[in-house]
Amino acid sequence: MLSKLQVKYIQSLGQKKFRDIEGTFVAEGPKLVEEILQSASIEITAVYALKNWMEQNSTLLKKLNVTEISEEYLSKISSLKTANRVVAVVKKIKEDLSPDLKGKITLVLDAIRDPGNLGTIIRIADWFGVKNIICSKDCADCYNSKVIQSTMGSIARVNIIYTELNAFLKEYPGIRIYAAGIEGKDVKSMTRLHEGIIVIGNESQGISPEMEKLANVKITISRVGKAESLNAAVATAIILSHLS
Amino acid sequence: MLSKLQVKYIQSLGQKKFRDIEGTFVAEGPKLVEEILQSASIEITAVYALKNWMEQNSTLLKKLNVTEISEEYLSKISSLKTANRVVAVVKKIKEDLSPDLKGKITLVLDAIRDPGNLGTIIRIADWFGVKNIICSKDCADCYNSKVIQSTMGSIARVNIIYTELNAFLKEYPGIRIYAAGIEGKDVKSMTRLHEGIIVIGNESQGISPEMEKLANVKITISRVGKAESLNAAVATAIILSHLS
Repeated sequence: MLSKLQVKYIQSLGQKKFRDIEGTFVAEGPKLVEEILQSASIEITAVYALKNWMEQNSTLLKKLNVTEISEEYLSKISSLKTANRVVAVVKKIKEDLSPDLKGKITLVLDAIRDPGNLGTIIRIADWFGVKNIICSKDCADCYNSKVIQSTMGSIARVNIIYTELNAFLKEYPGIRIYAAGIEGKDVKSMTRLHEGIIVIGNESQGISPEMEKLANVKITISRVGKAESLNAAVATAIILSHLS
Repeated sequence: MLSKLQVKYIQSLGQKKFRDIEGTFVAEGPKLVEEILQSASIEITAVYALKNWMEQNSTLLKKLNVTEISEEYLSKISSLKTANRVVAVVKKIKEDLSPDLKGKITLVLDAIRDPGNLGTIIRIADWFGVKNIICSKDCADCYNSKVIQSTMGSIARVNIIYTELNAFLKEYPGIRIYAAGIEGKDVKSMTRLHEGIIVIGNESQGISPEMEKLANVKITISRVGKAESLNAAVATAIILSHLS
């Protein structure tokens, strides 16, 4: 059973304001929750699950505070269209605000506002071994439930910072900045980078003039056909697959 | 003004069954409709638009059957969460069922069921100059409104066929088949292809055993980090950017 207060608390985490106050977020569904349960770096506050999920995961659950709930309560606390057996309340991951970017590829996201895009980019970064993603403050919140669901657990393995990009990048004067846009060097013709900061801009507006000024190299994905543009996550994947 | 019958007709096109009977589909929003209006290969049956859109596009509309409608009627016939100024009813594009695949890169989609993924793949194919996409019959319908909206007009430039893959591929014995999966030759280490058929499988189940048997070469995208998988559209983009 869940109290009204508990239901209200979990529902409130659908809003960034309350996630910030509480320092927690919500992860849902067997696949994601099981991945998070196995991650050493993530602390789980509470798990609410159907009986059948608890039975299947009894060994995972020994150290945990798990509450068995009914389908009815599950759908009350779920943010998904179709609730999926388990909901976990998870502590936000402590970010490293001054990461070492030497010898690494780093992503900078300039106003990526679509949560689905951000989640997919986090997953792509994790696939290509990118350790740090630096987000402008107007990017979608990485603890938004849509982002969390589309990262498929990669959120636990990538250091994500929200900051004022200009000031942040000035702390790393020695590392070259590559700005992705509709003009520039074709990534297919470039050799792999040993280190660098790759800036991905907002899909409709591209990279801000401020970021463009900071860039050492402009890069692009050459087009053979006629499609008007590529989705920001798709562009990130292509760039990382050629440069990282 | 729209009659009840017209409203019902447009709404019915939200279902594949009625799109198949009528041979039409719906495209929405200024960007997409304007792109379709400028395409020589697409025939538009009717356009329903707000006054302000009609005024802005008066030169485009000379030869067309356009009906001015109110916001109220627009939201009635729109399949979008937020209706966007214009809705067009469009004739399905006549597909080339026996395309020439010589000297070309062709995509084969094996059970891509998510409309958003299919739309993104069509747009990626168009970006990389892929002319033909061969879909298994259990792929999402390319005239589904979510697919149409996410293709951003690329639907007009790519020949999309639904067929029984096995029988289709046997008609092209001379062309090599590359199956994308979790094992195989790393696409990053391969040279560009002059021609070939690239098979992309369902995200959770991968390529069917039947298709795997037909493949001449297995290909993969090597992983550096720890993400469990890549989205099917993202994988398609990476593969095409290396091989096409």
